[in-house]
Amino acid sequence: MKYNREFSNFKNDYIFAKLKKTAEEMKRQGKEVVDLGVGDLSLPLFPVAVEEMIKSVKELGEKRSFTGYPPAEGLLSLREKISLDYGDLGISPSEIFISDGAKSDVGNLLDLFGTGISVLVPTPAYPAYAEANLFAGNKVTFLPCFKEDDFIPIPPVGKIFDVIYLCSPNNPTGSAFDKRTLSRWINYALSTGAVVLYDGAYCDFASENEVKSVYEIKNAEYCAVEIRSFSKSFGFTGVRCGYCVIPETLGEYNRLWKRRLSFRFNGVSVISQKGAEAYFSEEGRAAVKKRINYYKNNAEIIKIALKKKNLWYNNSCSSPYVFAKTPEGFSSEEFCDRAIKKFGIVLTPGNSFGEGGEGFFRISAFPERDKILKAVEITDKY
Amino acid sequence: MKYNREFSNFKNDYIFAKLKKTAEEMKRQGKEVVDLGVGDLSLPLFPVAVEEMIKSVKELGEKRSFTGYPPAEGLLSLREKISLDYGDLGISPSEIFISDGAKSDVGNLLDLFGTGISVLVPTPAYPAYAEANLFAGNKVTFLPCFKEDDFIPIPPVGKIFDVIYLCSPNNPTGSAFDKRTLSRWINYALSTGAVVLYDGAYCDFASENEVKSVYEIKNAEYCAVEIRSFSKSFGFTGVRCGYCVIPETLGEYNRLWKRRLSFRFNGVSVISQKGAEAYFSEEGRAAVKKRINYYKNNAEIIKIALKKKNLWYNNSCSSPYVFAKTPEGFSSEEFCDRAIKKFGIVLTPGNSFGEGGEGFFRISAFPERDKILKAVEITDKY
Repeated sequence: MKYNREFSNFKNDYIFAKLKKTAEEMKRQGKEVVDLGVGDLSLPLFPVAVEEMIKSVKELGEKRSFTGYPPAEGLLSLREKISLDYGDLGISPSEIFISDGAKSDVGNLLDLFGTGISVLVPTPAYPAYAEANLFAGNKVTFLPCFKEDDFIPIPPVGKIFDVIYLCSPNNPTGSAFDKRTLSRWINYALSTGAVVLYDGAYCDFASENEVKSVYEIKNAEYCAVEIRSFSKSFGFTGVRCGYCVIPETLGEYNRLWKRRLSFRFNGVSVISQKGAEAYFSEEGRAAVKKRINYYKNNAEIIKIALKKKNLWYNNSCSSPYVFAKTPEGFSSEEFCDRAIKKFGIVLTPGNSFGEGGEGFFRISAFPERDKILKAVEITDKY
Repeated sequence: MKYNREFSNFKNDYIFAKLKKTAEEMKRQGKEVVDLGVGDLSLPLFPVAVEEMIKSVKELGEKRSFTGYPPAEGLLSLREKISLDYGDLGISPSEIFISDGAKSDVGNLLDLFGTGISVLVPTPAYPAYAEANLFAGNKVTFLPCFKEDDFIPIPPVGKIFDVIYLCSPNNPTGSAFDKRTLSRWINYALSTGAVVLYDGAYCDFASENEVKSVYEIKNAEYCAVEIRSFSKSFGFTGVRCGYCVIPETLGEYNRLWKRRLSFRFNGVSVISQKGAEAYFSEEGRAAVKKRINYYKNNAEIIKIALKKKNLWYNNSCSSPYVFAKTPEGFSSEEFCDRAIKKFGIVLTPGNSFGEGGEGFFRISAFPERDKILKAVEITDKY
């Protein structure tokens, strides 16, 4: 029997699955656990999404409104709403492809390029970028980012890559691009013939002076694919819906992706797509705004606690994650191990996000306020 | 910019997308079209599925019952129900992986084997088998099946392949394996070290003397992966939910697949999964049974019409498709072209399913009864 040999590079569990397991084990032992580790949600869906999805389910249950396979590229009604949302940036529905989430797109889109390509991943980074590529047999080069630059990646002039992953606002560092820095990356990609896979899963968290869409940058439509998700700001982690933008100006990729979908995918649940449409309603937008503020306030509370402890943190409000330095003498894993065993607080070790993450840890601001306050209370005692 | 070179082998539109387009074009022109082409559904979801999904959406809308990311391998509650459904065949929940549908599994599972493998595809066959493999850079060998054998594939003794696709009840031919013939394939796979990807998307259509699960065959758990779907019998084409079984006895593949899911997939919509659970309720099973009969009766009506016209058809009731011979002198495409232009009836040309399909056409029994009768009425006139 033939095995994919790339699997031999994958000895350990994916870090987030591992964290979940540890926390569950402690809970089973009856210990109180405050989980600030995994980036999952605890606040429920907005009523407007619930309403739309109930309506959709009922429609599927009636003969006159039943629909079968959704188009592989997604419902036109949803793609039109997304297109409108892009406004002046001029993204048409035919450039938008609905997916079941950003993680799927991060790996699936590699099919556009063939195997054996060279890929640049600024780190610390969402582990799926590197894993999907190593698994596909691609050559991954890591570009470490530094505390001194607020973890903003800088293009490695003189080197050439086929694909570059950028994530802004960044998971795990919380940094976000301003136009000037992202322009440098777009120019770099254009001059080297690279395609940027721009992960904007957290774009709703971008502050006013930060880039929300890569297409705000001049000529990005000639070199960048944008990946987005309804997961974090719209509560859709369990509902599964996201999308990517492949501009028609980006060579053949738009056509190729459509072709790839035709034999590899039968579309995203109609119910999830109808629910996602509610994001673009007045009520949906207001709810998202309010919730983003809630998460950002969580992050502020976390930062105040870190300041009290004299721990360095990346002072950006753009992301639901706070990226902080471990106390002197602690590696990422040593510190996170101590945090769970001594305080019952789950954190994510920075080194799990690759090079450049060692010596740091990530705190998620997604848990409910009382969990955040509980963690602050515990650490205040020491 | 790097392009996946395999795309150059993909000049034409995927056949089902093409058929849909033709039909839509005719409708736009105001012509009446009876679509017996695409294998999509027109009958609505069962009330029991609607109820469960509404309940699930409501739960996601409440703080105390909200859940985030589903497990990548699927909800345990659903996997337990599937496991129970396998009964004596002894498939455990840890061997079951929930997917967003059979088409996704057909391609994604190839990641288990690495690139450049050799694959056997008996034809006529669901086009996604060959396309997913050609696209992945694998070597595809087609094994033509013949009218004289009722389109049942026979193992090509003396030849060795890494992966073998089998589909039963078969799309498009309607044939299904009995235990004796499928045993030959399992023994062939075991003796040559091949893995069988067994597409059982239509398993609910199997008649009593036919195989429903590949694991009914002795030792299949050492060489076969089974793919299944809630699409056809439970009306889930728009809801998206299926599953595959990778037995723990099948070498490392079970563990590898779990690992692959961890960085490539964030699970299937919780709502779809909760809906799928309703399949296993008493009400769900009764509804499925009734609907399968409805489709099978449609197939019978189609067969009677073909008999009147003296056209050969595969006389199997195991599938919602009737596979028939074109009249003397007509190629598949010539005949289907005539059917739509002269009669407004959409059929699927047999050659779109690859070698062995030329000279035949597929009629879908999924449309509503009145559509089937309408088509019969039209053709009766000539």
